[in-house]
Amino acid sequence: MIISVPATSANLGPGFDCLGLSLDFRNYFCITNSCLQTIDIIGEGENFNKLKADNVFVKIFSENLKKMGISDRTFAFEFRNKIPISRGLGSSSAVISAALGMAHLLKYGKIDKQEILNLALQYENHPDNITPAIFGGFNVAVVDNGKVLHLKQNISDDIRAVVVIPNRAISTKYSRQTLPKKYTNTDSVYNLSRSSLMCMAFMQEKWDMLRIASKDKFHQYRRMKQYPVLFAVQKVALENGALMSTLSGSGSSFLNICFKDDAQKILKAMQARFSNFRVLDLAFDNQGLQIEKE
Amino acid sequence: MIISVPATSANLGPGFDCLGLSLDFRNYFCITNSCLQTIDIIGEGENFNKLKADNVFVKIFSENLKKMGISDRTFAFEFRNKIPISRGLGSSSAVISAALGMAHLLKYGKIDKQEILNLALQYENHPDNITPAIFGGFNVAVVDNGKVLHLKQNISDDIRAVVVIPNRAISTKYSRQTLPKKYTNTDSVYNLSRSSLMCMAFMQEKWDMLRIASKDKFHQYRRMKQYPVLFAVQKVALENGALMSTLSGSGSSFLNICFKDDAQKILKAMQARFSNFRVLDLAFDNQGLQIEKE
Repeated sequence: MIISVPATSANLGPGFDCLGLSLDFRNYFCITNSCLQTIDIIGEGENFNKLKADNVFVKIFSENLKKMGISDRTFAFEFRNKIPISRGLGSSSAVISAALGMAHLLKYGKIDKQEILNLALQYENHPDNITPAIFGGFNVAVVDNGKVLHLKQNISDDIRAVVVIPNRAISTKYSRQTLPKKYTNTDSVYNLSRSSLMCMAFMQEKWDMLRIASKDKFHQYRRMKQYPVLFAVQKVALENGALMSTLSGSGSSFLNICFKDDAQKILKAMQARFSNFRVLDLAFDNQGLQIEKE
Repeated sequence: MIISVPATSANLGPGFDCLGLSLDFRNYFCITNSCLQTIDIIGEGENFNKLKADNVFVKIFSENLKKMGISDRTFAFEFRNKIPISRGLGSSSAVISAALGMAHLLKYGKIDKQEILNLALQYENHPDNITPAIFGGFNVAVVDNGKVLHLKQNISDDIRAVVVIPNRAISTKYSRQTLPKKYTNTDSVYNLSRSSLMCMAFMQEKWDMLRIASKDKFHQYRRMKQYPVLFAVQKVALENGALMSTLSGSGSSFLNICFKDDAQKILKAMQARFSNFRVLDLAFDNQGLQIEKE
């Protein structure tokens, strides 16, 4: 059985812990029956032995199979990873969603995406990566009473994502510790009004609103200060026509959204200026988690 | 010349200082050339002498005419007011928008709504009433660099507003003073995620999302505590099928949104229980400020 899950970009400027979108850039998770458990990793993470010794997919998958009364089977696991690890592009969410999805597919022969989403919240506190990972598109996610409510909008192919992936990580945990415990009334309204405007802009495809709608007072500045070159990344993106330029998740990657026709120009400007960073020109994804082979 | 402006309901649960919508319930502002200035008020406020002696419409209208080089004319003003005063239904925004609109109509023979919106911000600090007053519909408004950016969605006639108007006011100024200067990270995310979800719900007409999307941690509880009967108003509305029930502006009115077919039931339940309050069953307005006669 093969399941694929896309990369995601969350937080999206003012949309701290609630807005996220999905990128056309996938990890493939494959299991086959086997008398011996084996783990193969191809692509991102293939050189990290820790990922084999203590594999999160295998852990969540096995734990959930056991809960469903299946504990006597062994598998050969093969992971074909494109999503960079610890770069704010949703690699953890992809693993969590895929593991839960695979366990359900094995047990029930199908996947209830809403159920997977609610279960995924046990493994990842915030719903802004797991929601687009599972459903694709642009999403608002709200946690209410331990469940995730979300609304999704498909993203037009008029726009693209130029993603800049630095050569070092920002620790999500440390990154969160740098944030204040409280926000002023003014900053709170600043973010909630812009997050709301961003939703309307995505729904109405009013792309010219994104530059102002993507401004944030909650997290970006404090996180970017840990890695100041990111201010230059943002500046170059906006100077070269990006509609918005926001930290992806808690970083270190940067998501730059632009009109399709501007993507190559921004990509080249980024490659020229930040030659030791990876730069990808990506379409958005509107599918989310997919069963590739039952 | 006659201009009309609708009542509005702002704040909308989590959408503090940024979400607002427009109700099909209008004030009419009429000016005619006259050798003597006279002011007539019919309807709401007709018994308040202060409204004649120190009339905000006349003040803003005259001030703006003067700025545009017109200072030698006198008018007979007639105001036909439906919007209750100081009840959180946008009566001030209606007056401000109409006065600015009228001055521009007189000078230029037309009204640029975006210009009126930016000017209105001088007279009302927050954009969440003035935006729907001018444009109609459901609106997100953001103040950026002294200007108001907004996106609007027309509201379907599948839903109605049952508005409960108590027999006393809550002072907006006092009401704001009861609010904290800071919000916790958790409460901030609570509101910004729900405000964002509400925008998506209005765009996609996913009315079943409104109950959770309309929950708030910023202002409602503290304001309602000043007038505890409002908790009962909210409870009765939700028990009788309201999709959402939120304080209108800073109160004292309550906005209850429901499916068209449930409106009369909610209205009757409200009238039975709160017999000394006015209860109105209203359609939404998608026009905003209108020139009725040039």
